Amino acid sequence: MSVLIAGSIALDDLKTPFGERKDILGGSGTHSSISASFFSGVKLVGVVGKDFPKEHLDLFRSKGVDIEGLKISDGKTFHWEGFYEYDMNQAHTIKTDLNVLGSFDPRLPGSYKDSEYIFLANLDPDIQMRIIEQLNAPKFVVADTMNFWISNKKDALKKLMKHLDVMLMNDMEARQFSGQSNLIKAAAYILGTGCRYVIIKKGEHGALLFSKDTHFSAPSYPQENLIDPTGAGDSFAGGFIGYIAKKGVADVSTIKKAIIIGSVMASFNVEDFSLDRLRTLKRTDITSRYDLMKKCVQFDDLGPELL
Amino acid sequence: MSVLIAGSIALDDLKTPFGERKDILGGSGTHSSISASFFSGVKLVGVVGKDFPKEHLDLFRSKGVDIEGLKISDGKTFHWEGFYEYDMNQAHTIKTDLNVLGSFDPRLPGSYKDSEYIFLANLDPDIQMRIIEQLNAPKFVVADTMNFWISNKKDALKKLMKHLDVMLMNDMEARQFSGQSNLIKAAAYILGTGCRYVIIKKGEHGALLFSKDTHFSAPSYPQENLIDPTGAGDSFAGGFIGYIAKKGVADVSTIKKAIIIGSVMASFNVEDFSLDRLRTLKRTDITSRYDLMKKCVQFDDLGPELL
Repeated sequence: MSVLIAGSIALDDLKTPFGERKDILGGSGTHSSISASFFSGVKLVGVVGKDFPKEHLDLFRSKGVDIEGLKISDGKTFHWEGFYEYDMNQAHTIKTDLNVLGSFDPRLPGSYKDSEYIFLANLDPDIQMRIIEQLNAPKFVVADTMNFWISNKKDALKKLMKHLDVMLMNDMEARQFSGQSNLIKAAAYILGTGCRYVIIKKGEHGALLFSKDTHFSAPSYPQENLIDPTGAGDSFAGGFIGYIAKKGVADVSTIKKAIIIGSVMASFNVEDFSLDRLRTLKRTDITSRYDLMKKCVQFDDLGPELL
Repeated sequence: MSVLIAGSIALDDLKTPFGERKDILGGSGTHSSISASFFSGVKLVGVVGKDFPKEHLDLFRSKGVDIEGLKISDGKTFHWEGFYEYDMNQAHTIKTDLNVLGSFDPRLPGSYKDSEYIFLANLDPDIQMRIIEQLNAPKFVVADTMNFWISNKKDALKKLMKHLDVMLMNDMEARQFSGQSNLIKAAAYILGTGCRYVIIKKGEHGALLFSKDTHFSAPSYPQENLIDPTGAGDSFAGGFIGYIAKKGVADVSTIKKAIIIGSVMASFNVEDFSLDRLRTLKRTDITSRYDLMKKCVQFDDLGPELL
């Protein structure tokens, strides 16, 4: 089963305490689609400029990512310049040049319209909504967002959320969106918009899943080797939706496993700049780390000893 | 099996977004000993002033806490005045009056010296060390500390840590002590001092256990009803050491279960001011919440599906 992924494709300049890179491949659509490609076919929706290097198109193709929906427009590719300080929890933006992304109005190719598993990476919520409207029968729709849209287009975001199976937010976004500092209360508020599940991504502290009747607390991989956090959330989302599409079901057990898969993919993504770690990643690397995460959270039942 | 607990006994003035209280029972030794008393006998070491209300002594006695080692000195009881803002992750101190705690030099009663399970709550590390020196054959020693000692008595703290089975720190303290922002690296640094285990308490994000060959990630209870966070870390530690003493073994399985028990006790402690929630807590409340925390982290094995 293929997934449809819509998101930004970027050329980034960035600096972390471990080095500096110029014009490297980035963007939410890029990280999520390459991550998802380990589990399922991917149909990518996005836009790049004429300056976009052919080698990056070849990378998508080599990973089985269908780029029929990737528009190549006159102009320059979306460009982000930023840096991370020592603690690397927060990206600092120096400059954002939207370029061709500024006038992006996605039209799905005919072959994309029957897609059932959908990830709408961080984009204007009106654009995310227009993608949903072009789909014939989506089965499982996941969306991400960012603080900018929460501040500036909260109503559009709320409207979108009625159509979602899963809303992804990081902890700061969840607090901002809900006006609640307590994440359990924030999750209840988010579910009130109509999405079926919310996943709150907490970086080094793991992730929380909530629905009206489910709570799951996922650990993070104990990552010592953090080189570049860019795209962690997107590789999480790509692994998450890719695994669900592979299984072809979205019951609670599969969703929990998909969160662990997503966390594993994010943990690899941050071990090198851009997508470099994913270029060489093997399936056995993924399964070993999944098993390790399972071991990290196991503890025995209490039994009747206290009663 | 009894535990020996040494710590502060305080009368606190505090304010949270949910109310304001004056001269309420608090202190690290108080929260930890009452929490531990649900699992084992407790021998308390501490000091109070002549102003300390008899009803609080009666509370200790009613919970089976031996107060032979609680010295009643001329002067006033340790007093802390502080407040919590809306997010309640950080206590803000208005005033600390050490009073009788300022000249505290603990002498263990003869009946305390054979204690095997020990919790040294936050105190001057030199005083913590002097307690260890008075013990005949401690089997399992756990200690807590705070940012003040890390800043001002790091060498004394390092010396103490060579004698510990478990060092407890919160995430900020672990970062401060190690100079590492990455908690996995921070834990490795802390283990380098010679303690066998370190537990990094992360409040709403759970807790991490590390030894040279163990890593365990404990969830936090999904707490919506946070009224007063004072004493959360101490009730965690009390539940932790009390449960281990009850079992009479400190293998890795017991230590992991003890971390969950500690988290459960902390989650109850914060549901009301002072120790009020613990006054009415039942053992079945503890076991239900333990089972719920187990359910929160469970996910299925991956199986061979990706290979």
